[in-house]
Amino acid sequence: MLDVCLLGTGGMMPLPYRYLTSLMLRYNGVQLLVDCGEATQIAMKEAKWSAKPIDVMCITHYHADHISGLPGMLLTMGNADRTEPLTMIGPKGLERVVNSLRVIAPELPFPIKFIELNENIEQLSLAGIDITAFRLQHKVTCYGYKFEIKRGGRFDPQRAKEQEIPLPLWHRLQKGETIEDPAQPGKIYTPDMVLGPARRGLKLVYATDTRPVPVIAEQAQDADLFICEGMYGDPEKVAKAKENKHMMLTEAAQLAKQAQPRRFWLTHYSPSLNHPEEYEKDVRKIFPEAVLPKDGRSITLSFDEE
Amino acid sequence: MLDVCLLGTGGMMPLPYRYLTSLMLRYNGVQLLVDCGEATQIAMKEAKWSAKPIDVMCITHYHADHISGLPGMLLTMGNADRTEPLTMIGPKGLERVVNSLRVIAPELPFPIKFIELNENIEQLSLAGIDITAFRLQHKVTCYGYKFEIKRGGRFDPQRAKEQEIPLPLWHRLQKGETIEDPAQPGKIYTPDMVLGPARRGLKLVYATDTRPVPVIAEQAQDADLFICEGMYGDPEKVAKAKENKHMMLTEAAQLAKQAQPRRFWLTHYSPSLNHPEEYEKDVRKIFPEAVLPKDGRSITLSFDEE
Repeated sequence: MLDVCLLGTGGMMPLPYRYLTSLMLRYNGVQLLVDCGEATQIAMKEAKWSAKPIDVMCITHYHADHISGLPGMLLTMGNADRTEPLTMIGPKGLERVVNSLRVIAPELPFPIKFIELNENIEQLSLAGIDITAFRLQHKVTCYGYKFEIKRGGRFDPQRAKEQEIPLPLWHRLQKGETIEDPAQPGKIYTPDMVLGPARRGLKLVYATDTRPVPVIAEQAQDADLFICEGMYGDPEKVAKAKENKHMMLTEAAQLAKQAQPRRFWLTHYSPSLNHPEEYEKDVRKIFPEAVLPKDGRSITLSFDEE
Repeated sequence: MLDVCLLGTGGMMPLPYRYLTSLMLRYNGVQLLVDCGEATQIAMKEAKWSAKPIDVMCITHYHADHISGLPGMLLTMGNADRTEPLTMIGPKGLERVVNSLRVIAPELPFPIKFIELNENIEQLSLAGIDITAFRLQHKVTCYGYKFEIKRGGRFDPQRAKEQEIPLPLWHRLQKGETIEDPAQPGKIYTPDMVLGPARRGLKLVYATDTRPVPVIAEQAQDADLFICEGMYGDPEKVAKAKENKHMMLTEAAQLAKQAQPRRFWLTHYSPSLNHPEEYEKDVRKIFPEAVLPKDGRSITLSFDEE
């Protein structure tokens, strides 16, 4: 189960009725935050999530609306007596940017581990979550993130019995380990001896800020949830979207049409876009399942029953 | 007339129901902000004040809850196409701290002029407002601020006539200028020839974060409005107040009792202080006019009629 909360849906500046775009994920006791603009810690409290156990923080890019809440968030995490390390992932320059912001948060009771992204596509695995960072097209270096929970094949006890695999080893084979039989040195058991084909896991893709580049639809292919920026609604703003390297809501919907995710949420609305829902009809003409959420939209994604 | 709005009343971290402590002032078209914690720009929008014309920003000290909102505020001011310079006042290190935070707000369409405070008491005059910065007692260097609008004596047209001062010069004398008569070189008119004694002006004193030191009551003497931190209410928190260099609500009230301001507002409540109003009775036993405001409390201070 992957708990998801889109803490805010705004771009550029926080507003009284709309926090900056930021995403919280929780899987198996591990908590991830994607982006941390000004007031994200307030949005997190409103959503009843705690800052203390943020284990991983992914930053898309270093425009202020995506990282200006960092010093305050770090202090709040520290005030909660956190001592476990925090892993931060972001484009090249991460450590320099974070340390510069920490001029007002110099002392923290926990270490920060920095992972800086350099390639167009990078893959990481943290606490059972496979993370793919993929380069977007924005005014500065910016990455989208794909989060995947892989799911192995179904364990078949009948096959295990037939192959006379000792019962105490079943659990480890089920977890994917390759094991030598302790009673019969040289005898090796592999997971494929007892597992069926890998089953569909969970996939969430998050892309902001960017123009609609093909990599987004590739990464979001068949995702359980695809969250994508849509800065402007009014068709007259196309030139502005291109100039500022953002997307129209309809451009994002076209990406969804190509990717065919199970669920599709828009976010990162311009402060000038007072009522994104007015464009729902246009967006759903392109991708009928599109949702234009408000702050705090949440969902729990579960594995398909099999 | 001095417009005053206490944008937030919280300390340490912003909460869904309480913004960080910050003060807006407006006098004669000039706008001042004192402190700029995370989400202050949201609080300002809720109070219907505009960020574009912030002319002067005074920072008390460099703990994050008093300056973490600065990069976002600067960008919002820039996005409003501001080009007029911003004057920033704060303890020594101001330029270094601000430039470090500006790693995420490097390009602004307006210049910033820095005024760094070094002495225990410093006086400035900006746009008709006399500002006195006075050193407080906190864990780091921290200043309180006194804002004064001085008011000259009443103009006496009868005396001006008796002294045969030409009518076209009256207005400049009234403004406080010393003038040579253009028709009679060597003949000098001074304001005291036509003005009565200086009248009571306006005085606002703002003190946070600090222990209750005597300078606060000295500066706040007879103020029109004295705004003072009061971090804790529960008498059991006295040791914590001393350790963290903050004040009990009752300690702040004792300062008010000494200073005898016309109005007294408390602020900078601890996140643990859910209902400051529960301590109103205790505080008013010491200073009956005390107010424990909520975010957005505002008032317009006017000169006494004379």
